[in-house]
Amino acid sequence: MSVKAIAILGSTGSIGRQTLEIVRAHPDRLRVVALAAGRANPSLLAEQVREFRPELVAVPDDETARELTELIAGEPGALTIETGSEGLITAAAHTRAETVVTGVVGTLGLLPTAAAVRAGKTIALANKETLVAAGSAIMPMARRHGARIVPVDSEHSAIFQSLSGWESGDVRSIWLTGSGGPFRTWTREQMGRATIGDALKHPNWSMGPKITIDSATLMNKGLEVIEARWLFDIPPARIRVVIHPQSVLHSAVEFVDGSVVGQMGLPDMRLPIHFALFYPERVASEQVPPLDLVKLASLTFEEPDLERFPCLALARAAAADDGTVACVLNAANEVAVDAFLKGAIKFADIARYIEKVLERHVVVSKPSLEDILRADEWARATCLELMGALAHKPS
Amino acid sequence: MSVKAIAILGSTGSIGRQTLEIVRAHPDRLRVVALAAGRANPSLLAEQVREFRPELVAVPDDETARELTELIAGEPGALTIETGSEGLITAAAHTRAETVVTGVVGTLGLLPTAAAVRAGKTIALANKETLVAAGSAIMPMARRHGARIVPVDSEHSAIFQSLSGWESGDVRSIWLTGSGGPFRTWTREQMGRATIGDALKHPNWSMGPKITIDSATLMNKGLEVIEARWLFDIPPARIRVVIHPQSVLHSAVEFVDGSVVGQMGLPDMRLPIHFALFYPERVASEQVPPLDLVKLASLTFEEPDLERFPCLALARAAAADDGTVACVLNAANEVAVDAFLKGAIKFADIARYIEKVLERHVVVSKPSLEDILRADEWARATCLELMGALAHKPS
Repeated sequence: MSVKAIAILGSTGSIGRQTLEIVRAHPDRLRVVALAAGRANPSLLAEQVREFRPELVAVPDDETARELTELIAGEPGALTIETGSEGLITAAAHTRAETVVTGVVGTLGLLPTAAAVRAGKTIALANKETLVAAGSAIMPMARRHGARIVPVDSEHSAIFQSLSGWESGDVRSIWLTGSGGPFRTWTREQMGRATIGDALKHPNWSMGPKITIDSATLMNKGLEVIEARWLFDIPPARIRVVIHPQSVLHSAVEFVDGSVVGQMGLPDMRLPIHFALFYPERVASEQVPPLDLVKLASLTFEEPDLERFPCLALARAAAADDGTVACVLNAANEVAVDAFLKGAIKFADIARYIEKVLERHVVVSKPSLEDILRADEWARATCLELMGALAHKPS
Repeated sequence: MSVKAIAILGSTGSIGRQTLEIVRAHPDRLRVVALAAGRANPSLLAEQVREFRPELVAVPDDETARELTELIAGEPGALTIETGSEGLITAAAHTRAETVVTGVVGTLGLLPTAAAVRAGKTIALANKETLVAAGSAIMPMARRHGARIVPVDSEHSAIFQSLSGWESGDVRSIWLTGSGGPFRTWTREQMGRATIGDALKHPNWSMGPKITIDSATLMNKGLEVIEARWLFDIPPARIRVVIHPQSVLHSAVEFVDGSVVGQMGLPDMRLPIHFALFYPERVASEQVPPLDLVKLASLTFEEPDLERFPCLALARAAAADDGTVACVLNAANEVAVDAFLKGAIKFADIARYIEKVLERHVVVSKPSLEDILRADEWARATCLELMGALAHKPS
């Protein structure tokens, strides 16, 4: 039994906190060497530093660094505090880290994930945007540097586990399941009147607000199709989204011989995080109550309705492109969801703005990381611009 | 791409015929070198010989050998015909066979399976009784001779596929699923009046009469618990039987980290046979229509009722024993089911006779194959004797 050294990017977020819960339960197996967090919750970050004693902490700016220094004053031991995007990259490529948990949200995760990949780390990938926007650049990089990418998303963890030992050539199709979100049974008219509160009521999973809105639009499933495409080297046409309201079957693989292998569990992110942290080992955990199929209601499966969920249709179309389309889709979605959460646009406008941004985009094929970051920036600016321009018109 | 040479024991039975269907569909990948069959259907065996041109055929006796010789008269090519249990063993250990499909039913499969194991073959194991009666002897033998055992039972194939790459130490429990058989929703009183026809109406699977009755008593699940115990080196207390009327989830593995991986498919034996024939490869097949979860009714799961299905309780108790108990249970069951199929005893009597035979059995611990065959013979004789003795009493 060896102790695995880990770095956690986004330690005060949902994935980061749950990762640290698992570290706390396995002090003989896991050790934190680096943490990175935003400016939202410096006192939680200080607590984490006191408890887990990393060698390095990365924060966004000098002010947060000062605040953190004050909060942990008097603590013994050496701690290096780094700042800015350089600090985040230093944490991601920390010499002693074996596994890097990328729990930062959005395109912010792209460069640090690339740094960890270049350093040959095992990536416990919780930052969906990395592969959505830059899968065409990151996956060959991972192969070149021998970096192993273990997904933390419950769906991709399920596919990864179902594939165990088999290869993409053995796969006929992937069934990517989703609960269908809070609007699964709503009419288009009801959805037109949906409030922020309605959209934030996810039936099964407890997650951050951005990803919860993505679950309501089904953009989440669309982004997952794109992520799965890169992660498992499967053409998007062979990735099928299946609505499964009970969220028990987390996804499945249909093999070429007709056999279907799927992974099941309670909807608890600690399961895929735990799996990714310990992979290629299975380590016992009592943190999550066991799944009991007999105690569950029946399991049901439905086709998604692309008419009511245009974001899924947009993402499916983007999934077929190898260039910057998915990056632009993702960036426009981030801006639009943010605007929805701020009450600036309606629920149905999210898809409309994404579509408008995509219409204006000039695709870059075979993009470099720089091309991707430029396309991302362009998409954000364009989406904001369109929202400003349209703010005075009825949508 | 290489051509795999196979031997099929029980070629005219249900498993044998379906195996040959798969061979027929993959002439560039599979080749038959030996066939063994009983005396039930010599003309089918002759057809198989003409189509697949094995080097060796084993039949039970000289009369069947003569009949076969006449039926295939005029066919070109050299064919050796062997007879008796020696012939069956010769087919099982055929020098050129890489994979041996053991599709013979009952204890008859024990010695030929042992011969194939000793010859270091890959065993596509469809003969449940081998491990039920002799798991304690066969499994160490397989390890010694480097023989790989790939189960053909749909439940064990599901567990095998779900375990892919993981070991028994990674497993918290196994969920062995079963449809519940034709009497799942019947009361004990209704079951008391069940006819042979009622018991032969299996809701999902089309199988031979013996195994269909075992599905009606749930003895089938009990025997599968015992088989799984040996096959996967899992204590029987950690093997849970779950009733799943739709027969879609063919079984699942709960890992120590709380993750559950299961295999799904249509109830079609060609899926696990195909898997076992090609393992460790996955080869594309279009023979079985793809599973579509969306088109299915909902999936449900229930606890089995040990009161109404005493055979399952008897088998679970036997599973805990390392000696000859499971062998005796299995032999007594074969005799009792045969008597039921002949109309000699009632459905509820099957469990009663097995229990009476088990009560009289003096357990041999650490049994050799000879001890097992002796216990088997004793159990059959005792069961018949009890049935004769009780024939004139009201049961």
